[in-house]
Amino acid sequence: MNALVATNRNFKLASRLLGLDAKLEKSLLIPFREIKVECTIPKDDGTLASFVGFRVQHDNARGPMKGGIRYHPEVDPDEVNALAQLMTWKTAVANIPYGGAKGGIGCNPGELSLSELERLTRVFTQKIHDLIGIHTDVPAPDMGTGPQTMAWILDEYSKFHGHSPAVVTGKPIDLGGSLGRDAATGRGVLFATEALLNEHGKTISGQRFVIQGFGNVGAWAAQLISEQGGKIIAVSDITGAIKNSKGIDIPSLLKHAQ
Amino acid sequence: MNALVATNRNFKLASRLLGLDAKLEKSLLIPFREIKVECTIPKDDGTLASFVGFRVQHDNARGPMKGGIRYHPEVDPDEVNALAQLMTWKTAVANIPYGGAKGGIGCNPGELSLSELERLTRVFTQKIHDLIGIHTDVPAPDMGTGPQTMAWILDEYSKFHGHSPAVVTGKPIDLGGSLGRDAATGRGVLFATEALLNEHGKTISGQRFVIQGFGNVGAWAAQLISEQGGKIIAVSDITGAIKNSKGIDIPSLLKHAQ
Amino acid sequence: MNALVATNRNFKLASRLLGLDAKLEKSLLIPFREIKVECTIPKDDGTLASFVGFRVQHDNARGPMKGGIRYHPEVDPDEVNALAQLMTWKTAVANIPYGGAKGGIGCNPGELSLSELERLTRVFTQKIHDLIGIHTDVPAPDMGTGPQTMAWILDEYSKFHGHSPAVVTGKPIDLGGSLGRDAATGRGVLFATEALLNEHGKTISGQRFVIQGFGNVGAWAAQLISEQGGKIIAVSDITGAIKNSKGIDIPSLLKHAQ
Amino acid sequence: MNALVATNRNFKLASRLLGLDAKLEKSLLIPFREIKVECTIPKDDGTLASFVGFRVQHDNARGPMKGGIRYHPEVDPDEVNALAQLMTWKTAVANIPYGGAKGGIGCNPGELSLSELERLTRVFTQKIHDLIGIHTDVPAPDMGTGPQTMAWILDEYSKFHGHSPAVVTGKPIDLGGSLGRDAATGRGVLFATEALLNEHGKTISGQRFVIQGFGNVGAWAAQLISEQGGKIIAVSDITGAIKNSKGIDIPSLLKHAQ
Amino acid sequence: MNALVATNRNFKLASRLLGLDAKLEKSLLIPFREIKVECTIPKDDGTLASFVGFRVQHDNARGPMKGGIRYHPEVDPDEVNALAQLMTWKTAVANIPYGGAKGGIGCNPGELSLSELERLTRVFTQKIHDLIGIHTDVPAPDMGTGPQTMAWILDEYSKFHGHSPAVVTGKPIDLGGSLGRDAATGRGVLFATEALLNEHGKTISGQRFVIQGFGNVGAWAAQLISEQGGKIIAVSDITGAIKNSKGIDIPSLLKHAQ
Amino acid sequence: MNALVATNRNFKLASRLLGLDAKLEKSLLIPFREIKVECTIPKDDGTLASFVGFRVQHDNARGPMKGGIRYHPEVDPDEVNALAQLMTWKTAVANIPYGGAKGGIGCNPGELSLSELERLTRVFTQKIHDLIGIHTDVPAPDMGTGPQTMAWILDEYSKFHGHSPAVVTGKPIDLGGSLGRDAATGRGVLFATEALLNEHGKTISGQRFVIQGFGNVGAWAAQLISEQGGKIIAVSDITGAIKNSKGIDIPSLLKHAQ
Repeated sequence: MNALVATNRNFKLASRLLGLDAKLEKSLLIPFREIKVECTIPKDDGTLASFVGFRVQHDNARGPMKGGIRYHPEVDPDEVNALAQLMTWKTAVANIPYGGAKGGIGCNPGELSLSELERLTRVFTQKIHDLIGIHTDVPAPDMGTGPQTMAWILDEYSKFHGHSPAVVTGKPIDLGGSLGRDAATGRGVLFATEALLNEHGKTISGQRFVIQGFGNVGAWAAQLISEQGGKIIAVSDITGAIKNSKGIDIPSLLKHAQ
Repeated sequence: MNALVATNRNFKLASRLLGLDAKLEKSLLIPFREIKVECTIPKDDGTLASFVGFRVQHDNARGPMKGGIRYHPEVDPDEVNALAQLMTWKTAVANIPYGGAKGGIGCNPGELSLSELERLTRVFTQKIHDLIGIHTDVPAPDMGTGPQTMAWILDEYSKFHGHSPAVVTGKPIDLGGSLGRDAATGRGVLFATEALLNEHGKTISGQRFVIQGFGNVGAWAAQLISEQGGKIIAVSDITGAIKNSKGIDIPSLLKHAQ
Repeated sequence: MNALVATNRNFKLASRLLGLDAKLEKSLLIPFREIKVECTIPKDDGTLASFVGFRVQHDNARGPMKGGIRYHPEVDPDEVNALAQLMTWKTAVANIPYGGAKGGIGCNPGELSLSELERLTRVFTQKIHDLIGIHTDVPAPDMGTGPQTMAWILDEYSKFHGHSPAVVTGKPIDLGGSLGRDAATGRGVLFATEALLNEHGKTISGQRFVIQGFGNVGAWAAQLISEQGGKIIAVSDITGAIKNSKGIDIPSLLKHAQ
Repeated sequence: MNALVATNRNFKLASRLLGLDAKLEKSLLIPFREIKVECTIPKDDGTLASFVGFRVQHDNARGPMKGGIRYHPEVDPDEVNALAQLMTWKTAVANIPYGGAKGGIGCNPGELSLSELERLTRVFTQKIHDLIGIHTDVPAPDMGTGPQTMAWILDEYSKFHGHSPAVVTGKPIDLGGSLGRDAATGRGVLFATEALLNEHGKTISGQRFVIQGFGNVGAWAAQLISEQGGKIIAVSDITGAIKNSKGIDIPSLLKHAQ
Repeated sequence: MNALVATNRNFKLASRLLGLDAKLEKSLLIPFREIKVECTIPKDDGTLASFVGFRVQHDNARGPMKGGIRYHPEVDPDEVNALAQLMTWKTAVANIPYGGAKGGIGCNPGELSLSELERLTRVFTQKIHDLIGIHTDVPAPDMGTGPQTMAWILDEYSKFHGHSPAVVTGKPIDLGGSLGRDAATGRGVLFATEALLNEHGKTISGQRFVIQGFGNVGAWAAQLISEQGGKIIAVSDITGAIKNSKGIDIPSLLKHAQ
Repeated sequence: MNALVATNRNFKLASRLLGLDAKLEKSLLIPFREIKVECTIPKDDGTLASFVGFRVQHDNARGPMKGGIRYHPEVDPDEVNALAQLMTWKTAVANIPYGGAKGGIGCNPGELSLSELERLTRVFTQKIHDLIGIHTDVPAPDMGTGPQTMAWILDEYSKFHGHSPAVVTGKPIDLGGSLGRDAATGRGVLFATEALLNEHGKTISGQRFVIQGFGNVGAWAAQLISEQGGKIIAVSDITGAIKNSKGIDIPSLLKHAQ
């Protein structure tokens, strides 16, 4: 099912449980603003290439909007729309004073050189710089992007608005990034898992876990769960899977994965 | 056929005739920027209503973008996108220093009170005021909108940017509108028809014409063609059609239509 | 006596005691800036109504100006001027880095619907948005206004300047308001009374009190004084007065007043 | 009678003749915005002096507001208010796309040195620079001010907004002033007088005239009327009056007055 | 002699003839503002290169400053300073409402690829965009720069300030450049020569001319002088010289030079 | 040796030790931006005087630039350039998130009245206000300037940008300055001396010190070293020197110096 259809269906279920009236429900489903921009760059071989970039700003009633920017060939408006909406519900449920947004560029970062990625990121930033900002919408890294991408956004945005380290999160520590940001999403998996187990009168320690994905999030989750005494019996990623019913040695696996 | 599919197909035919390379062709097909905004207003009965507004800015290489804003229940992104692209080609072919854009709100203006239309237009203007402007993108009236709509946009825009009569065309004469704007599109029909006939060694005078549509454009075209000696033998609009093979008396029909 | 005449007389007495020279005294009496704006709104019945709004900014030598906005039929320039000046002296005596301002609209809020009050507040904000701000002048609630009024100002101001919760104080907690703001002025009455009694070697406990006014300020003062052991023997408000020489039961009275 | 009372009375007479409804009449009487600012300057002797400056912006429905700035000891809010309102009616009656404003400083320019006048004008400009501008409100010289004053305003305004010769009219020719501005008001007297006489079937030539005031306006009016064949039989100014029933030799009088 | 020393000496000679006082003379010699910026770009081979760019703004008393931007290895602050000053005197002598400025980058444009020149021009524009503009300072082409350079400046400046064709002169015709700009400097040589000859009672026709330099300026001067009947007997440029005492055939030479 | 030559030589020594490549070294030697402005003021006697002001902004890679503004007759571009570069290395070595800048005006503050110094500081601020700011470049006092100078800059800057106490450091405590700023540089001398001695296994206590200069820095250093048990055996300043091998009584000397 299309991500937007699924997200809207879940929201409507929640809305009915809360007894929201139909017009408010409709208003919450329509994003505040969607932007789609053309990003044309010279490639290293001198030819031109055009990519489409998106930023969907779903809701800012509770504070500046927050959400990642992903680079992936299958980025499409519906997916970005759905993810922006989910950011609104996530910040609201966690009761932090932010709204929800999401963005991305339809490209395959693996096929672009570092210098092409820099040019693409800078052009995208030029196209949306008037629509983001510390009090408006604060991007973050997501699939296919990372601290280096945030550093380029920060630098390009600062050409227009002056030194503005707060315009993105997930930037390199040296440019004002937060310690612990690296592990944060994986640590969130740990916390959510702990909360779920506690509701059933259990703890991490003594449970067995299977982890799907071993990128930044999965690897940190594996390491932190294992430190809490959880037994990881299987791990998979895009290249394959391993299994050990006595528990995988996560530190060794991490060393191997690097 | 979907308007965007048709427009893209025609552009590609032209592009191949001109020998444009594939990457430039792709770049010209992708709009510069597309914006989609939520417009929530209180209705006269106190309930809330949410509408979706669009502005597609296709290309500004030749100057500030130019294009209408339409209010119609079937406004959708593809149609707006296609019309924005056509504005780029129209201003280029006419060799005036403008680019192309188009916008609209998905609503039925016939079901909204004047005061609801004003509130909707002002909220839409608040959502796009940073993205339009005399050097950037200059809206104009289109289906379902007119001088009054432009006056509301002008007034709301001026709250943010100071007295700015140049931000829209098609505004009321009293607010700086141009004399002759009313008849301009119909007069364009006359000029295009004359040019076509001249290519075949003919003139307006002595020809017979059938006119489909008798709103602002069709009525002015009928009147101007008839003044040049053309014989209008049939006229139709949404309510029906009339026919007179000896020629319809256009001044009488205009009086009747009012 | 006119509030401004009285305030100026008191300031001159203080100025003479401090030995200020005549020109500095004159300069301190003249406000930094006074603004008077026309606020025209459509009423719910479709007719137009015009109100006059004021903002007097008295002095910003010690920091951004601070002061309430009141809605009352008898708001006039002299009263607003006097209250702005008193804010300058209050922030200076309390040694907090702020200056003094005050504003208001000449209207009877009891005769306006909630939706008319919202429109009036938004129009007033549009007229003064360039003259207030976090580093310039920060409004607060006053007679006839409250957290809802501040929320409207915040929202309208943010349309022009981006998400700006700090542009007003006294806003709803959910929009970033401070806990305890509700009781703050009544608590100030308690602190001032304690300080006065301490100078005479007495404490709240064991004293008898008469309280004039039982709105937000008076009711909180009564409750807090009573919690400190003070005996409230009489309370009056616009609707009448009650008296009990053994002490009024304030919690019961509060329940009754609601 | 107070100038504002008189102006309001005349407007109400006109309003009744036009059949304006009472609420629109009230709205047209309330100025758009009134600003009152403190202007403190060091005098040449090193002491401080404080003056009060005004700018009343009456109405901008028909275009940017236009009106003089006068320096006079008796400048007061009611007079400035009345004169601003008259500018609205004057620009409307003459059908030029401007609104009405007026300003002034309560000071005696004859008691201030050139350098004190410069400092006062620059401080006043700093206090109102955000509220005037080519699309908003364009000041002009008036009683006690002239091209030099406008040059100071232009220069000070340009520090904030970049080179802006259009922010004032009546500036020196070398800074972009208009040829003929000097004689313009006197020439207006000639045109109005001609129009009045024509309505009675007469012309300037052959009529006798008495002229009260022989400053810039009166002297130019005298000269232009005399060039059209009018006979000036008496002239007065603040210093006295002369009379000659055969007609005063205006060129000689001008030479004498200089 | 250093260009600045020579220019200052000539100005002082003129200043003494005009009887300017010493302090005014000193003030006219000091430029309004000098800016020196670092421009670091990636070269095509991936390494970094740093260049120094200058903009000297000499005087804006008579209007926005005007002056070229040159790319040459020997650009230095004194030369730019001298040329900026000469622009002030040139615009003043020609009595057009502009001041004087000049800029440049210390680089050898012949050793940079087109794409390196584009990057260098865009970085330089980013560093000075806040200090130039239609009302402030309007650059133009000069040695080593041309319409393409102006197009890059225009495009980069427009990213920050919106579509701004007026920020540079000498831009391509298609972007709003002026017809005749190409020949303008050479035509100026013709006009100056004509004026000089007229003072001696002679005309172009019948005179013999020697032209040093055959770039854009010299080639146009040769062609225009020859069209007026002047006999060009010698032409030289960086590559050599030709001579023909009967007169060189300029059209043939132009064809050859291309 | 010229300060810039010396600074560049030291940087190159460090650069070679760090193994920086030649192009990066060159880029780090070129300042980000150098500004030179003309500051013309009326002197107290009515004549005009012109001074040259500088601001060199060396590097902002690590955060907003930071550095003093000095008033001294021998201020020249090379010295300011060298000091700006040293600020970059100082903030980097101390690992605080700032870059380096420096500025100054070529004037003798001892020959200017307080009112001339105020006018000069305000004109200088007007010329550079667009290039400094809390996120860009934050000036501080230096030779010939102090808290009063910073207060003038703060006030003039705030006319353009709103109440901005953070635009300068070293301002008066009453305007938001930091307690301890007065002693800070002298305390830095103490800390550096302690660190040096500790490396040699010694402490302040028991050592003998000679102090060259007894202005704000030297006097505080003397006092603080003496409080830590150091023996000051000689002190010199511009007016002479004293010596006492048993240790000078610093509190008495301070009283005497005042």
